[in-house]
Amino acid sequence: MQPDLLPGHRAASVLNELRNASPLVHCMTNAVVQSFTANVLLAIGAAPAMVIEPEEAAQFAPLASSVLINIGTLTADSRRAMLAAIDAANKASTPWVLDPVAVGGLTFRTQFARLALELQPAAIRGNASEILALAGEQGGGRGVDSTDEALCALPAAQKLAQLSGAIVAVTGEEDYITDGENTWRVPGGGALMTRVVGTGCALSAVVAACCSLPGSRLDSVAAACQLMKTAGGLAIAACRGPGSFTPAFLDALYGLRAEDLT
Amino acid sequence: MQPDLLPGHRAASVLNELRNASPLVHCMTNAVVQSFTANVLLAIGAAPAMVIEPEEAAQFAPLASSVLINIGTLTADSRRAMLAAIDAANKASTPWVLDPVAVGGLTFRTQFARLALELQPAAIRGNASEILALAGEQGGGRGVDSTDEALCALPAAQKLAQLSGAIVAVTGEEDYITDGENTWRVPGGGALMTRVVGTGCALSAVVAACCSLPGSRLDSVAAACQLMKTAGGLAIAACRGPGSFTPAFLDALYGLRAEDLT
Amino acid sequence: MQPDLLPGHRAASVLNELRNASPLVHCMTNAVVQSFTANVLLAIGAAPAMVIEPEEAAQFAPLASSVLINIGTLTADSRRAMLAAIDAANKASTPWVLDPVAVGGLTFRTQFARLALELQPAAIRGNASEILALAGEQGGGRGVDSTDEALCALPAAQKLAQLSGAIVAVTGEEDYITDGENTWRVPGGGALMTRVVGTGCALSAVVAACCSLPGSRLDSVAAACQLMKTAGGLAIAACRGPGSFTPAFLDALYGLRAEDLT
Repeated sequence: MQPDLLPGHRAASVLNELRNASPLVHCMTNAVVQSFTANVLLAIGAAPAMVIEPEEAAQFAPLASSVLINIGTLTADSRRAMLAAIDAANKASTPWVLDPVAVGGLTFRTQFARLALELQPAAIRGNASEILALAGEQGGGRGVDSTDEALCALPAAQKLAQLSGAIVAVTGEEDYITDGENTWRVPGGGALMTRVVGTGCALSAVVAACCSLPGSRLDSVAAACQLMKTAGGLAIAACRGPGSFTPAFLDALYGLRAEDLT
Repeated sequence: MQPDLLPGHRAASVLNELRNASPLVHCMTNAVVQSFTANVLLAIGAAPAMVIEPEEAAQFAPLASSVLINIGTLTADSRRAMLAAIDAANKASTPWVLDPVAVGGLTFRTQFARLALELQPAAIRGNASEILALAGEQGGGRGVDSTDEALCALPAAQKLAQLSGAIVAVTGEEDYITDGENTWRVPGGGALMTRVVGTGCALSAVVAACCSLPGSRLDSVAAACQLMKTAGGLAIAACRGPGSFTPAFLDALYGLRAEDLT
Repeated sequence: MQPDLLPGHRAASVLNELRNASPLVHCMTNAVVQSFTANVLLAIGAAPAMVIEPEEAAQFAPLASSVLINIGTLTADSRRAMLAAIDAANKASTPWVLDPVAVGGLTFRTQFARLALELQPAAIRGNASEILALAGEQGGGRGVDSTDEALCALPAAQKLAQLSGAIVAVTGEEDYITDGENTWRVPGGGALMTRVVGTGCALSAVVAACCSLPGSRLDSVAAACQLMKTAGGLAIAACRGPGSFTPAFLDALYGLRAEDLT
């Protein structure tokens, strides 16, 4: 049996809150997607700040609305800064989100991701391979590609949610968002989004933005997925390929209306 | 009383000189805006080069037309390379520009910015919060957002210019450019530019390019602001949101004509 | 006498193989072009992965279809990771490609490039200045600008190919691709491509993707150049400047048909 669809009015109300609150997201993310991630946050109405020096990261995390930890290009230096930021965020009750890029196959990031899992992330966003690997079910795929369907990874996502206390979003052709007990399903978007680097990483940043909002965190994370899926679908309809997708996608996020979501 | 507007023919003549000279700008800038900064310099007719290893940075700065120092993602490593580049630039009389991103709130970059201030920058470009913080007037805002109007920060900019010997540009809805005594006002652009990451950082790179030109440096820095404001206004008129703004903005910089500025 | 043109049907057959194989390219590239490089690979049908931590780079290179080594923003850290990746790639017979950005003028990268040259790259892609400098003919130009015509550097490219065993592509207004004995000529593209950062660096990534394919490596590397030249020409015809070039270029790569190449 398929999980229920997130009702459109919930996504619309999260979008409204997001634009009113304009959360400041402290992004500690990989070297490839920094600019796109910042532009996605700005387009949707949030504010990005990339602060990466360890001392500053610890100083800044408590001032931010939320923190994003993305391990796509983890190094010894960024690992140290991320741990400092997570520690400071936890002390200040600032929610932080884990994007375990390509976890499973590579030792350094896999050890870090397992450690991070113990540090109370508010949410985890990954594709099926990553969620399976993080739950200890099997190794990851080739880089950021996901070779497993998101639905197959839902049991692993539920286990991971129960284990870590985080909301877990396993994303793919359809997204599934679970707190371990209740699950929302979010369809939309399209295959062209996999031909543009950073759509998943940027989603994790929007998840972080939404984790700072009041109300049900399960709904907020699912709404983040819905906002990106819906804008993605609008952009795919308006573009001619992966190049014109990017400007169309940012325009769609910026102009997203409640009625687009319902 | 408002400062005078920069006459359009001065901006046009700087644009002309810029395209003829095609200055090579050694950009030591933050991780988020590298690609956009390079594309802005290329579109306007300058040439970017990102050289970041300390030994190479010291070797390259004297060969460049000017150097940009942007502290948005300062680390211990980049700090060391930046100091080496500034030292080599000063020895070679290569002008260098300081963009004190988010100075004030974060200790590591604030200490570096205060140190850099002693090292004779040719120009400083920041928003109101940053200029106020750098002048010691008050702490910075939340990241790169500026919560103070540029005009309110003009006295701080004037003080900073007198103190450091640099041309100071405080940018916002309108830009103010001062040598501590004379001041130009530059209107234009629009709020959409704050929804695209790196417009301020890229302006600082164009300021660096213009600082390498002969003639009044006050006029050159003000012209840099005018070029970006005018291209921004043209792009806003041509685009549908922050996504389509970026290609339209680079096209506008590339195609900018003297008559657009007057 | 001009070298022969690469026949269009060879480029078309490489494009077809590339899309079928979807090679996974381990990109160790400079900080400026990471996002554009990844998007170019995705648009053409390959898959990018940026893995930069030394231990992980050594672990990942043998799993990848090929490795790209681009020295544009080389540091002590990235140097170490690149050497580990090259060593692991060679042990696993994974082909790797050298892009010697701005070699010649700057000591740290020049020493690294000379060392890398001994480590059996499958291919080398550079502009005329870089190929001349790497062959020991003369120093490089100002950063990534090439002040020598590609044809003048062809003898140096041939010497470099014989010396290193690599296919050498010297690119410019026309590209020349040689194994030291046989040479293909690839025209196309246009000057606007020099006003967009990363077109050369992204070509090197496509060269790496093509080096993983079976068949003549000389033809594969020349085909990589042809794919980029042809898509560049289509994009120039469709765009209004360097800003709209980028989305048009990625769209053109994505939609490239055999008949566009013949």
